[in-house]
Amino acid sequence: MDHGAPLGAWGEAPSGRVLDPKTEAFARARLGEPLGAPGPSETAGRGAGQTVHDNSALTPERMHALFPGVEWSLEASLRARFSRGMSYLNLMSWRAGDVVRLPDAVVFPTSHDDVLKVLAACSAQGIAVVPVGGGTSVTGGVDTPNLNTVVVCSLDRMSEVQNLDTESGIVTVQAGATGPQLESYLKDRGWTLGHFPQSFERATIGGYIATRSSGQSSSGYGRIEDLLVGAEVATPVGTLSVGGYPASATGPDLRHVVLGSEGALGIVTSADLRVRAFPTFREYSAAIVPGDFSAAARVVRALTRSPLRPTIVRASDEAETKALLTMSGPGGVLGGAFSMYMRMRRALPGSLIIVGWESESATTLAAMRAFARETLADAGTVSIGGRPGRSWVASRFLGPYQRDAMMDAGYLVETFETVVVWSAIDDTHHTLAEVVRTQLGDDSYVMAHISHSYEVGASLYFTVLAGARSDPRASMDRWRSAKAAIMDALAECGAAVSHHHGVGRDHRDFLPAAIGPVGEDILRAMKTTLDPGWIMNPGALVTRSDGQR
Amino acid sequence: MDHGAPLGAWGEAPSGRVLDPKTEAFARARLGEPLGAPGPSETAGRGAGQTVHDNSALTPERMHALFPGVEWSLEASLRARFSRGMSYLNLMSWRAGDVVRLPDAVVFPTSHDDVLKVLAACSAQGIAVVPVGGGTSVTGGVDTPNLNTVVVCSLDRMSEVQNLDTESGIVTVQAGATGPQLESYLKDRGWTLGHFPQSFERATIGGYIATRSSGQSSSGYGRIEDLLVGAEVATPVGTLSVGGYPASATGPDLRHVVLGSEGALGIVTSADLRVRAFPTFREYSAAIVPGDFSAAARVVRALTRSPLRPTIVRASDEAETKALLTMSGPGGVLGGAFSMYMRMRRALPGSLIIVGWESESATTLAAMRAFARETLADAGTVSIGGRPGRSWVASRFLGPYQRDAMMDAGYLVETFETVVVWSAIDDTHHTLAEVVRTQLGDDSYVMAHISHSYEVGASLYFTVLAGARSDPRASMDRWRSAKAAIMDALAECGAAVSHHHGVGRDHRDFLPAAIGPVGEDILRAMKTTLDPGWIMNPGALVTRSDGQR
Ligand SMILES: Cc1cc2nc3c(=O)[nH]c(=O)nc-3n(C[C@H](O)[C@H](O)[C@H](O)COP(=O)(O)OP(=O)(O)OC[C@H]3O[C@@H](n4cnc5c(N)ncnc54)[C@H](O)[C@@H]3O)c2cc1C
Ligand SMILES: Cc1cc2nc3c(=O)[nH]c(=O)nc-3n(C[C@H](O)[C@H](O)[C@H](O)COP(=O)(O)OP(=O)(O)OC[C@H]3O[C@@H](n4cnc5c(N)ncnc54)[C@H](O)[C@@H]3O)c2cc1C
Repeated sequence: MDHGAPLGAWGEAPSGRVLDPKTEAFARARLGEPLGAPGPSETAGRGAGQTVHDNSALTPERMHALFPGVEWSLEASLRARFSRGMSYLNLMSWRAGDVVRLPDAVVFPTSHDDVLKVLAACSAQGIAVVPVGGGTSVTGGVDTPNLNTVVVCSLDRMSEVQNLDTESGIVTVQAGATGPQLESYLKDRGWTLGHFPQSFERATIGGYIATRSSGQSSSGYGRIEDLLVGAEVATPVGTLSVGGYPASATGPDLRHVVLGSEGALGIVTSADLRVRAFPTFREYSAAIVPGDFSAAARVVRALTRSPLRPTIVRASDEAETKALLTMSGPGGVLGGAFSMYMRMRRALPGSLIIVGWESESATTLAAMRAFARETLADAGTVSIGGRPGRSWVASRFLGPYQRDAMMDAGYLVETFETVVVWSAIDDTHHTLAEVVRTQLGDDSYVMAHISHSYEVGASLYFTVLAGARSDPRASMDRWRSAKAAIMDALAECGAAVSHHHGVGRDHRDFLPAAIGPVGEDILRAMKTTLDPGWIMNPGALVTRSDGQR
Repeated sequence: MDHGAPLGAWGEAPSGRVLDPKTEAFARARLGEPLGAPGPSETAGRGAGQTVHDNSALTPERMHALFPGVEWSLEASLRARFSRGMSYLNLMSWRAGDVVRLPDAVVFPTSHDDVLKVLAACSAQGIAVVPVGGGTSVTGGVDTPNLNTVVVCSLDRMSEVQNLDTESGIVTVQAGATGPQLESYLKDRGWTLGHFPQSFERATIGGYIATRSSGQSSSGYGRIEDLLVGAEVATPVGTLSVGGYPASATGPDLRHVVLGSEGALGIVTSADLRVRAFPTFREYSAAIVPGDFSAAARVVRALTRSPLRPTIVRASDEAETKALLTMSGPGGVLGGAFSMYMRMRRALPGSLIIVGWESESATTLAAMRAFARETLADAGTVSIGGRPGRSWVASRFLGPYQRDAMMDAGYLVETFETVVVWSAIDDTHHTLAEVVRTQLGDDSYVMAHISHSYEVGASLYFTVLAGARSDPRASMDRWRSAKAAIMDALAECGAAVSHHHGVGRDHRDFLPAAIGPVGEDILRAMKTTLDPGWIMNPGALVTRSDGQR
């Protein structure tokens, strides 16, 4: 977590998050008038002074005694930075000036042994520990629980690349490294991890693993679980080393206990990750699939079921296609080119598909591209050329900045996501869009895309926009009740609680229905084994059978 | 398990397992004289009457009371069939006429609810349960433990295909279905699972899942864990349903608790498996890589690291290449063709590589083939054409029959396997071959191949042959001490306890060192949660912390 990062916002400074004029026009037309500055945006990004309070249950003396040799801080503004993640409700709580529980201290271990010591001390004293990587959780995974004493264990000082096994294609890296830190090391040496979530700029390797993250190029590179060869985990009962082999038949695969453990079982301190030759050849393209979203889903399915599948496949529904067409700024795909606009109009109504190919081999890329072109042509799609694809790739990390700008204008902006098998995709898409519309009413806009696809199904990622309210708490309540209806609808559709955001505190109550009482008992047993005092990220992922943290 | 199957042998009848003359000549030259019939082969395949004893701890009355409405048998010869798996030591114990512990009864549930009832009854009475699918375990996974009362739960009556979701490409099948049962259903409808272990003819879906099996076409289709979308599991504490999504971020992935559970946590009753369009296009080819095995491993690595990787990649070391060259019968690859023999001689010494491509698309197959040809050419390999590849594919399920014939001749024949990252492959290959040679001496032959490869590493599969002994127990002791040395050497090389055979009883004592005490405690916690009375397959996979079953 970048300590200089603004509070309650993604972007560095308000200038970096100006609403692009076409987006603003679109928002005005669909969501109603924005709120003019000065508004809540003034507090955000400035330190939100009013939310910071000083009292900590821990004193410097106690800290020295508890964590000898480990760096720490009791400073209130620093503790505030570590008190929340990046969900809409998190960001709004800054803007609303909500007084939230701060962690009592932040510790900064630098090694696996440091982390072991921190956990042993906290375990002995019954002090709760919240592991924090980039702090980009959107499911309440890093929100400070309301308990007696809470220490954040930050992975900020653990971002070293420890080894690169070029024969095996495995990098060993400390869990606190961010995407850019690892990728720049790898790129210098001709390799890539290929894991690019939209939160790439800030999220960490440990966070990826703990939440089962999936990057935007997952069709080509796989999810984080496909990249994880092995991991070192510090737990209150000692060290757990998992994996180390490409695959094995040695009982249950304990890597999959660590993947998705969300700080509730232990702290990943380093990971062995599969890397690939840096893809010197890269191409992106876009097309419109005429017809409704189900036609686009079938195209994605056909693209995904081949070994020649593209590295990136993304299909927007009609609502998102319309929005992307309108917003030509960052996040918009047309870059203002009139000819493309005309070609696109001809094919509309329809769904925008973006495909990308990355390879270190030009021949392989050509084979992949030929397969996709044939598949797209068979489906009667209208190509709109390489520019929208390139433009999407160039701006793919800009979404969060635009979110800030939309929030500055007072709009509600949030996303949710799920995953289903292909036979349930249309129903899930329809049902959820309808639920959002019913919940949020006329001054709202819901759009969706498939960005992660598999042979047997795909994720659905929804973006929800709604009109500005001058009282931030009204917007927050509005979203809270919509979200509750969304979670119920997902369960009814047989769709997963999450495809890549995780469970955290926000989805925790919906997990038991999905995994059943026996499944829940397995999680509890894992937890009790690794964390007998239940000090690890209490309230996230799993609760005791009596519902207590 | 086919109840009519011969005891202590794979083949139906001695006629089906005659040693091919060239193989016999090879064996004579390398391993010494065979033992002439009549030998132990006479007992094998005939029922090995002397090993069957009648006493069961259970009576018909007790069975009725325990398992109302469930089919069962107390018949001694049937119980004998279910008393052991298919390891060399298992097969030899039939030939030696060893009196082994028989299970007290065999039950044949037909539904998930039946299985739940069986487990509840056994749990209440402290009766041990051994789940048996095809009974092809080579790690002692189905050997009757020496406990008071032991019931085998056979999945024989649960082999129905329950659903085929053609939109999603998912088949739902009861866990007792064998490979051929499922594949023939799928083929009729234009699909395939693509999972072809050498034990395909007999092993079951539940057995695949429980042991983390890997088929011979794993490069193209993936391991069983890549195919498993979801599973229903009956446990002593009730039903556990896992998965159901292509992927998700909902905490630890409980599918990976079931995968590799080896009957020690519960009984898989049905599974949702990913299927693919039946590959109407299939081609196989072979080449010799000049130089030592490490050169061949590098070629396999290059082939595997591309999305255009072949469906099948297999590389034999020099010893295995020599043997395959000599044995032109089933299992031999040359089929006696002189021109190929000459081409092969020119390239020798070297390593035989077999590659295969399967696809429902001719274009895709062509792209894959072009990539492989280029990669093989770049490595300076000598193509020996399509025939050896086709011949290998045609005979790929015949290995076990030849093993019977070799054992009939008194020879020691066994295999062992492991998996390592690429940077450790040469060392592991050398070290293990050397250990076997040292252990078994001059009248032995050890050969190896890579048959499952991954981007970061590969499996190593060793076949061990040694001279005939007239006393079967001498052969068994000989293998036991070699195997102990092998397991130690694997650990020293950082190689896995198993790549696809599993842990069972034979490898159980080697698992703790591999997963560490914390890992072991997680397994125990899973076990205690699902099987509080520790009645499930006691002694397999995991033991209590006091070492007790
Ligand atoms: C704008 C935006 C876009 C996003 N886009 C994506 C996306 O495309 N794909 C995607 O998968 N996710 C996405 N996310 C979600 C989030 O970025 C991921 O969940 C990410 O993996 C979290 O990484 P982090 O380092 O920020 O973890 P944090 O937020 O710090 O922590 C997340 C959880 O993991 C735990 N944790 C963190 N580090 C460790 C560790 N070393 N050991 C054990 N537990 C640990 C925490 O306790 C917490 O429960 C997005 C979030 C935002 C705000
Ligand atoms: C000649 C030969 C060749 C082989 N080749 C391969 C190969 O290429 N690849 C490979 O992966 N393996 C191979 N094996 C090993 C073996 O075939 C596999 O382990 C297979 O998966 C076992 O399936 P099965 O149905 O026979 O299981 P069984 O032998 O009946 O049981 C194996 C284990 O799984 C448990 N089990 C079985 N069914 C269930 C269930 N429904 N629920 C829970 N637990 C269950 C048992 O209790 C036992 O612990 C080979 C074996 C032989 C003899």
